[in-house]
Amino acid sequence: MWRKSVRSHIVGKVELDKARLQHDLEALAAVPRVEEEYDEFSSGYWKNLSLWNSSGEADDTMYRDIQGSAKPTAHAAKAPYLDELIHTVFDSKIVKMARARNLVDAMVIPHRDFIELNKDNDQYFRTFMVLEDNGSAFHSDDDTVIHMRPGEIWYLDAAAPHSAVNFSSDSRQALCVDFAFEGSFTEDQIFADKSFYRPDLEPEIVVRKPFTTDHRDKLVQLGGIIDNDNFKDILFLMSRVHYRYDVPAAETYEWFVEACRLADDTTLTAKAEGVRDYMIGQRALGERLVAAA
Amino acid sequence: MWRKSVRSHIVGKVELDKARLQHDLEALAAVPRVEEEYDEFSSGYWKNLSLWNSSGEADDTMYRDIQGSAKPTAHAAKAPYLDELIHTVFDSKIVKMARARNLVDAMVIPHRDFIELNKDNDQYFRTFMVLEDNGSAFHSDDDTVIHMRPGEIWYLDAAAPHSAVNFSSDSRQALCVDFAFEGSFTEDQIFADKSFYRPDLEPEIVVRKPFTTDHRDKLVQLGGIIDNDNFKDILFLMSRVHYRYDVPAAETYEWFVEACRLADDTTLTAKAEGVRDYMIGQRALGERLVAAA
Repeated sequence: MWRKSVRSHIVGKVELDKARLQHDLEALAAVPRVEEEYDEFSSGYWKNLSLWNSSGEADDTMYRDIQGSAKPTAHAAKAPYLDELIHTVFDSKIVKMARARNLVDAMVIPHRDFIELNKDNDQYFRTFMVLEDNGSAFHSDDDTVIHMRPGEIWYLDAAAPHSAVNFSSDSRQALCVDFAFEGSFTEDQIFADKSFYRPDLEPEIVVRKPFTTDHRDKLVQLGGIIDNDNFKDILFLMSRVHYRYDVPAAETYEWFVEACRLADDTTLTAKAEGVRDYMIGQRALGERLVAAA
Repeated sequence: MWRKSVRSHIVGKVELDKARLQHDLEALAAVPRVEEEYDEFSSGYWKNLSLWNSSGEADDTMYRDIQGSAKPTAHAAKAPYLDELIHTVFDSKIVKMARARNLVDAMVIPHRDFIELNKDNDQYFRTFMVLEDNGSAFHSDDDTVIHMRPGEIWYLDAAAPHSAVNFSSDSRQALCVDFAFEGSFTEDQIFADKSFYRPDLEPEIVVRKPFTTDHRDKLVQLGGIIDNDNFKDILFLMSRVHYRYDVPAAETYEWFVEACRLADDTTLTAKAEGVRDYMIGQRALGERLVAAA
């Protein structure tokens, strides 16, 4: 039995119209990727199209605190079904951003979000709905690995260490809708039509293999080969482990720092600690650490 | 003393006009990346803009055998200095393709090119000129690692195992101009003005650390951790080794296949052998192997 917690969980469900959805998915797949801010902590093909945002500019992918609701961009016009869903499923007056995202043969390593912004973390409410079924694509949240099914509306606890991966080269588009509240709120407030609110649904939690101390030792022993050149390869290798083995995502950084200590390289160890603190600890607005520098 | 060989070598030199070049570099940096064919053997930021190609279409990045010369695309108009260099330095009548390329915190792993096309390999002549100095960006060719300096025109022996890397997150734009000949030719034929032909110039060859059997053993011992999920991480980790240690690029695949054998996983071993054969062995036109499948 799934116990609902403050962590990521299903808040709603949409029966997707496959024919209308297919049109939008194809239209969005045809949009060339916008050149984003250089991101040293992602790998593979990562696409992020703003449907609604603070400026209304299609190329603006930055989340910002705004008064009122976000404005549709030119990409929203290409995806009329998704634009309609944002209007009819959600309370569009409080939508702060809506993005169509894709991740192919790619991973976003464990991290926390929103820790740079002004509000308390619990004033942000991010939802995520997978649009294409992909059995090789997963999300992780603290110590849980999830396979999201199309149409499920998930609350993502961005303040907890989380990660996303697609082990395959097949597409996995998703709709990410962000809300922000002033003061107290209940989850059902994000919906225009409360029939979409379905906090009772059970998620598909991935059953993982046991994580052994022998496995942990082997990972830390990568300290025998770690250096500045393969720092990122090893960080990414370690970041994938929790998807298959039953261990919290954040422990990735423990093995990683221990491996650098084993290499007896103080510069590398300091760099690894810096990455750990940047990804799952506190960080200042705009601060960027280049792992591969 | 550098011994000229049939492998990659300097064929010419241009004194670059820094002010005019800067304009073009900024204009090309502002062009959003075209969504390219999915490439499972690259990592990081890899940009490829067609200045001249077989179709004249800016979004067409495919090399094809063509009669006569390539046609300028819309990108050539944005880079008037580079377009002028293609006209005045090279014999533009026999230019088959000209591309502005960038590689940032990225690597193209050891591979051979052109083995799919119709002509004998020695009928293709690819030149490469780095436009920005970047002390962390290297090329490798068989058993040599090169730091190319701005303005040097290199012949790239694409039929030999070669690789490119930029260990930094700084830009490293380059101009790649392809020629193809019918029958015998001499290298100076690519130049419109023979004063650019400078086969006497000495390259900057990177002095690497000795590669030891202990280091080799440690790499092969990665078989203790290799699996389907980290297959690509480990391939990339191994592919970087030859840039720092004195060992031929192609040996990467020996360690890699040995590591998979050590893991005693026949499926993984077959996959590694397939990647090796695809990258540095023979392959059929259009055949694609997905390393991360």
